[in-house]
Amino acid sequence: MGLNSSLRFRPFGIDTAFEYVVYLNAGCHICRSEGFAAQTRVVVGANGKTLIATLNILRGGALGIDEAALSLSAQAALDARPGDLLRFSHVPVLQSTSHIRAKIYGQRLNAVELKAIVDDTVAGRLSDLHLAAFVAACSGDRLDIDETVSLTTAMVDAGERLHWERTPVVDKHCVGGLPGNRTTPIVVAIVTACGLTMPKTSSRAITSPAGTADTMEVLAPVNLDVRAIRRVVDSVGGCIVWGGGMQLSPADDMLIRIERPLDLDSDGQLVASVLSKKIAAGSDRVLIDLPVGPTAKVRDAAAAARLCQRLSAVGTKLGLHVDTIVTDGTQPVGRGIGPGLEARDVVQVLTNHPNAPRDLRDRAVLLAGRVLELGGGADAGQGSAKAGATLDSGLAWRQFQAICEAQGGMRTIPQAPLTHVVTAARDGPVADVDNRVLARIAKLAGAPQSKSAGVDLHVQLGAPVEIGQALYTIHAEAPGELRYALGYATEHMDVVRIANDHD
Amino acid sequence: MGLNSSLRFRPFGIDTAFEYVVYLNAGCHICRSEGFAAQTRVVVGANGKTLIATLNILRGGALGIDEAALSLSAQAALDARPGDLLRFSHVPVLQSTSHIRAKIYGQRLNAVELKAIVDDTVAGRLSDLHLAAFVAACSGDRLDIDETVSLTTAMVDAGERLHWERTPVVDKHCVGGLPGNRTTPIVVAIVTACGLTMPKTSSRAITSPAGTADTMEVLAPVNLDVRAIRRVVDSVGGCIVWGGGMQLSPADDMLIRIERPLDLDSDGQLVASVLSKKIAAGSDRVLIDLPVGPTAKVRDAAAAARLCQRLSAVGTKLGLHVDTIVTDGTQPVGRGIGPGLEARDVVQVLTNHPNAPRDLRDRAVLLAGRVLELGGGADAGQGSAKAGATLDSGLAWRQFQAICEAQGGMRTIPQAPLTHVVTAARDGPVADVDNRVLARIAKLAGAPQSKSAGVDLHVQLGAPVEIGQALYTIHAEAPGELRYALGYATEHMDVVRIANDHD
Repeated sequence: MGLNSSLRFRPFGIDTAFEYVVYLNAGCHICRSEGFAAQTRVVVGANGKTLIATLNILRGGALGIDEAALSLSAQAALDARPGDLLRFSHVPVLQSTSHIRAKIYGQRLNAVELKAIVDDTVAGRLSDLHLAAFVAACSGDRLDIDETVSLTTAMVDAGERLHWERTPVVDKHCVGGLPGNRTTPIVVAIVTACGLTMPKTSSRAITSPAGTADTMEVLAPVNLDVRAIRRVVDSVGGCIVWGGGMQLSPADDMLIRIERPLDLDSDGQLVASVLSKKIAAGSDRVLIDLPVGPTAKVRDAAAAARLCQRLSAVGTKLGLHVDTIVTDGTQPVGRGIGPGLEARDVVQVLTNHPNAPRDLRDRAVLLAGRVLELGGGADAGQGSAKAGATLDSGLAWRQFQAICEAQGGMRTIPQAPLTHVVTAARDGPVADVDNRVLARIAKLAGAPQSKSAGVDLHVQLGAPVEIGQALYTIHAEAPGELRYALGYATEHMDVVRIANDHD
Repeated sequence: MGLNSSLRFRPFGIDTAFEYVVYLNAGCHICRSEGFAAQTRVVVGANGKTLIATLNILRGGALGIDEAALSLSAQAALDARPGDLLRFSHVPVLQSTSHIRAKIYGQRLNAVELKAIVDDTVAGRLSDLHLAAFVAACSGDRLDIDETVSLTTAMVDAGERLHWERTPVVDKHCVGGLPGNRTTPIVVAIVTACGLTMPKTSSRAITSPAGTADTMEVLAPVNLDVRAIRRVVDSVGGCIVWGGGMQLSPADDMLIRIERPLDLDSDGQLVASVLSKKIAAGSDRVLIDLPVGPTAKVRDAAAAARLCQRLSAVGTKLGLHVDTIVTDGTQPVGRGIGPGLEARDVVQVLTNHPNAPRDLRDRAVLLAGRVLELGGGADAGQGSAKAGATLDSGLAWRQFQAICEAQGGMRTIPQAPLTHVVTAARDGPVADVDNRVLARIAKLAGAPQSKSAGVDLHVQLGAPVEIGQALYTIHAEAPGELRYALGYATEHMDVVRIANDHD
């Protein structure tokens, strides 16, 4: 478009989170000659980089007609400095939007088509509307095995990939939906204390109140780059870091920020998400934990079997040895739900604290045992015993401290300034715990953004309670959030249901 | 949240088109105490009105910590004036988002659930991500008849509804996908000249270069309110107005602005869109025209039959007499594609101009004849003859001028300042015209936003052309748009395919 298509960058300081927005004066020559209107998607270039941004038009004097402003996200992505020349052009017609439409209409996509969608996603060329439509179109079992393999491969190829000199490199992943189930830091500590290599990259929460990375961040830095991770793993045999910080399957993170507000996480995308991260992280033997329960992410044995089958089938086609384990998902594991409260549970188990939640310890020992067997660190059937002994001896705790130190230093767990205790309205045994409502309360209280926010559950299924006894405590950092969570909790008093005489 | 939850409105002048955005200073007490972050959805209230907006955070001195700015769309919706108190609160948990998720997972929705989605859509409570996911989830034949009836009813109930003293009240609608097929203004002129009542409300373009409302707006005002429409219809028996201007099925318009960038328009949503507008407009007998062709919206006879069946079935359940007609959709009807160029064709037909496109006249006479028969204005089999005579006598043109005057005054058709003629690369008959590519070229040239932009097609299927002969002309208002359309046209030289010796 020639020299006429450029304007001077003027910082404006508008934080739109991830969204790229560009602000132009309504009277500038770009708007007039190019026919741009508000919400048009436009290509913006500076410093040899380009991105696609959504256009907002400034009507008023805040911006000169020879100036353009950028959202902070776009400013960072273009590395733009005040006075830099920004160049504008129309968005090319994207083949990937046709492929998304084809998927919406129920057609199968081939590897080339899925790669086009993933590449355009990572390059920021697709609008959030397109990504939301794509996510919805893939949900409800609408990706078959071959499509899932293609999507996984495209996601791996669109990012960085770690390679390790040694083998085996083990990993584990829990298919979420079970609040508080924070076994990963414990498993990594046990398994690496036993000499296996386990470079664990975790994600942040998708639809849950905390992801492993959110919880681990309470205890140590998790935003490590590839060099730092290699140093940590070389020195202590393992790590627990955020995968999104180093461009391992970056498409996964971009889809997650669409899936999160939609509360969607379909089978095909779940498998592609999990396995692309594992493959990109360089592991070759992976244990996938699927907690099953009526309010967990996986609702019943049939759904678990389907997911196991898909995980193994896709893994096999991609050269990854996938083992699966179906566990009890009928109630939360551990007491805390939210990053800080879950971190407290983890540390109690690792330190053999007398109040440590027994169920979390048992679950971690079970999983660590299976990983030890998968990686050749224990004979078949001997894994759990070895894992338990590693915890009891304090070896796992010392190893966990070493990992935290290697990642940048261990941190103190923050306490929420505001709490509210919800008590039993009558006597009786606990008949039901609704994981989804508990998770929602924890999210409304501010988790995972507010580290110390969440829910502390004080009772378990079947336990007898008395009227007035504490059932759970809501933790929050801001009054508005506490009030919001409490409002929802008041509407859902049966989140912890106490049996009555007729039950 | 008390008085602490309010800030003073300061105008900022940011045009985000339809999107509601609120801008807060990072240091304001709302962000600090309520835990709001960028991209959070928040409730904003002022002057007794509320809406849900997306939050952007200002980091810098452009906004005080006791101030808040609004996008122009939100400012208008709240009727906010400088210094007004804006009040903020968290978005309540919406049941409709669960229903959207259920639909994505392939479940049927009942009337109550669809009503919740439609009501939250109209109230602006759902984010664009949710609407995009809903639109995608309903596409590809995933709404059954009962769901379509429920969706249609919910869409009618969520808006205004016209009632007419007389009966019958006739209407017609063309299921688009055929560039230039602008019969409606001609049909309304003929049918009302013959004494029937036809209050026509049309939509703007969804995925095409022009909707009937876009084209009619070139010739007369179309943004009339209910009172004005009643006055026009009472005085001249009919009108051709934009339906979105008076809250007839406003949900339809809100879904359209999501469907447009996604280029989606599914069977179920199409039926709900068409019939909700007709019912809300108070008509009781409707003719639906379905042009069929390989590059039209309806691709083949089977798809047309399915759509006819669904239109009739849903219409019957809602007390609407629906007649359908399948027409030839293999090539554009008329010469112009784009609002101004189509308006020129319409006027040529109505004035019996020697250059009037014969195909557009024939199509309009066919449809007007069917509407006359449907409404009792002509005996069975006699409709077309009566329609033709009404055109020939000049009665239809005088009636059309009367309608334009009643709607606010007839306008002159604008001419595009920039044109480019695309010529034949060889001799031969025209073997193929790709409607979709032609429509795309017209859209890239600026239609429908730029009224005079579009494509003027100079040849028809089967016509012999010589090398160098003009095939079509691109019209544009801005150099960038002409260049963009031309770039795409150059990549698709076979949009008008000329047979070679081997064909």
